[in-house]
Amino acid sequence: MLAAVLRRGEVTLHIGARSWRVFSSLARSGSCRILKSPTLVSLDLHEDWTHKVDEDRQKSFDIQNKSNQLDAALIDGKAIAEEIRSEIANEVSWMKSSIRKTPGLAVLLVGDRRDCQIYVHNKILACDEVGIRSEVSELPECCSEDEILNALTNFNENPEIHGVLVQLPLPERFDEEKILSMLPLEKDVDGFHPSNMGNLAMEGREPLFIPCTPKGCLELLLRSGVEIMGKRAVVIGRSNIVGLPTSLLLQRYHATVTVLHAFTKNPERISREADIVVAAVGMPNLVRGNWLKPGAVVIDVGTYPVEDPSSDSGYRLLGDVCYGEAVKVASAITPVPGGVGPMTVAMLLLNTLESAKRVYGFC
Amino acid sequence: MLAAVLRRGEVTLHIGARSWRVFSSLARSGSCRILKSPTLVSLDLHEDWTHKVDEDRQKSFDIQNKSNQLDAALIDGKAIAEEIRSEIANEVSWMKSSIRKTPGLAVLLVGDRRDCQIYVHNKILACDEVGIRSEVSELPECCSEDEILNALTNFNENPEIHGVLVQLPLPERFDEEKILSMLPLEKDVDGFHPSNMGNLAMEGREPLFIPCTPKGCLELLLRSGVEIMGKRAVVIGRSNIVGLPTSLLLQRYHATVTVLHAFTKNPERISREADIVVAAVGMPNLVRGNWLKPGAVVIDVGTYPVEDPSSDSGYRLLGDVCYGEAVKVASAITPVPGGVGPMTVAMLLLNTLESAKRVYGFC
Repeated sequence: MLAAVLRRGEVTLHIGARSWRVFSSLARSGSCRILKSPTLVSLDLHEDWTHKVDEDRQKSFDIQNKSNQLDAALIDGKAIAEEIRSEIANEVSWMKSSIRKTPGLAVLLVGDRRDCQIYVHNKILACDEVGIRSEVSELPECCSEDEILNALTNFNENPEIHGVLVQLPLPERFDEEKILSMLPLEKDVDGFHPSNMGNLAMEGREPLFIPCTPKGCLELLLRSGVEIMGKRAVVIGRSNIVGLPTSLLLQRYHATVTVLHAFTKNPERISREADIVVAAVGMPNLVRGNWLKPGAVVIDVGTYPVEDPSSDSGYRLLGDVCYGEAVKVASAITPVPGGVGPMTVAMLLLNTLESAKRVYGFC
Repeated sequence: MLAAVLRRGEVTLHIGARSWRVFSSLARSGSCRILKSPTLVSLDLHEDWTHKVDEDRQKSFDIQNKSNQLDAALIDGKAIAEEIRSEIANEVSWMKSSIRKTPGLAVLLVGDRRDCQIYVHNKILACDEVGIRSEVSELPECCSEDEILNALTNFNENPEIHGVLVQLPLPERFDEEKILSMLPLEKDVDGFHPSNMGNLAMEGREPLFIPCTPKGCLELLLRSGVEIMGKRAVVIGRSNIVGLPTSLLLQRYHATVTVLHAFTKNPERISREADIVVAAVGMPNLVRGNWLKPGAVVIDVGTYPVEDPSSDSGYRLLGDVCYGEAVKVASAITPVPGGVGPMTVAMLLLNTLESAKRVYGFC
């Protein structure tokens, strides 16, 4: 039989009255070749979504939806985030008054990227607003890896710091994975540690922290009364920071989850089956109206700046979802800006508070 | 506006000419309630699949398929596992002759469960067959947790042991999670450590080990020449040991993956969209013919013993897939037994070999 397999890569077996075609890779591999376990395909490929928008189908869709007058409900992330921050402020002041302890967040900023400086500035302001103590360690782009590791070690050893984060991206010459692995699990408020991700994915385990943006997406759904258990959910994009943990989190809430990526064929057809669509690709207007099932709930994580002379800032933000079309099909949708964005910082504050509560056994 | 929200839980905003229904949970939460972050829903629920089989649809399916004469190709796990074991044996003897080193596997067996004893016995025999050194530490059911931890510490400190596994299930009184966390990442050949799972899930990261059964499923697909990238894959079941890592692995190979579980509505409809179906539930014949798209590739991980006086052992094994029906619809299918089963032990040997190669820098 093996001889036959080696000749033809396939053999017909006769067992009783039945016949089977039997696959074999011996013809390809050769029984004496050096064993090579299948290497994991890298996900670090250029995810080209540009081909995904189907203009023709779009046209017919536009026509058939002209009559639809009812707009989707707005999921107001700004208002919900404000509500959460005020709840956090209440808890922080309660913690201070009852056990004389204050949650503390430390941020490491390396280099002088303007956008990173703004993000860090906003996080610090948000901490101040709710009464969380914050520290920033700024290092110049030319600093050594040792200086970064020392700064992290100081934060890690400081008992008054309950959350530590490294503002990303780091300057390219640094080994981001190595530096992030220096963060202790119990202070990893960004929740990016593989062990946190594994515990988020695994049955019967609890991650210490849920990454902020996915946690914010779930909060938006939960606080808007959207049912998740048993629903079809589609997550578009599979980044470590948003797509992956959001899909794991939705599954943890018993949704039936499909993750779409740039290698997905007919993504709009699959997306149209979903009750909940989370778009986290970073490609403006990728998700057109014909990607949505009427009545779907849409969470748009994308924020893409485009020039806009008419705005004070000179630009405006676009999401992954073509809002003008989606709002006519969905039952509820987050706007960009003012949807998921404000939730991310709120969840960072919440993770820091929860970390402090865990340390002090404060409920 | 907030007053209105509190009264009605929903408010209508007028912005320019547009009107929006705005969700708010203030009515439910109350702005002064104590903050409670959404707790993660436990996955430890009874997953009742019994309602999933639709007898009526089944009947019509049987009729419409009567005419189909072409049976699916058999993916012969037994033959492929034998081939892999012979390749491992070649590499082990090559390692011995070139660097005078031998891969070593240690197994901890606690208690006297007959099935566990048989599994361990088979693993040791398989090690012997390919020339991998093996050690078993047997502890009585009445042993203390310290005795277990000491046995693991000895394995962990032994430089000639490259893989350590704890035969599961442990007697109920032990904290399985705590004991498994004692395994060092670099010897966790079962790949169950959350950090391994996180690294399997995350873009740009590599797990040290891929859990054996999922790795075996992928080997079956790859060695049978089944294309994965861009295909729709459905994984039925989401256990930490099979379903979850298999879904992560298929996604890593760029399939578009949907995970079905007991809370999935119309699982057969979703399953029928898949080019690749991996069934890992442990419910015999759950996956009927009408769960499959004609031409789908089916990997059946289930093994469920049922009494069978006609067999020497007094029982026979059933898979999750109704083989008699599936073989008439699928293009390729694994049998039970003789499909995935033999691959699991082969992958354990492969993980142990790869661990030793990593330690000795042997390529």
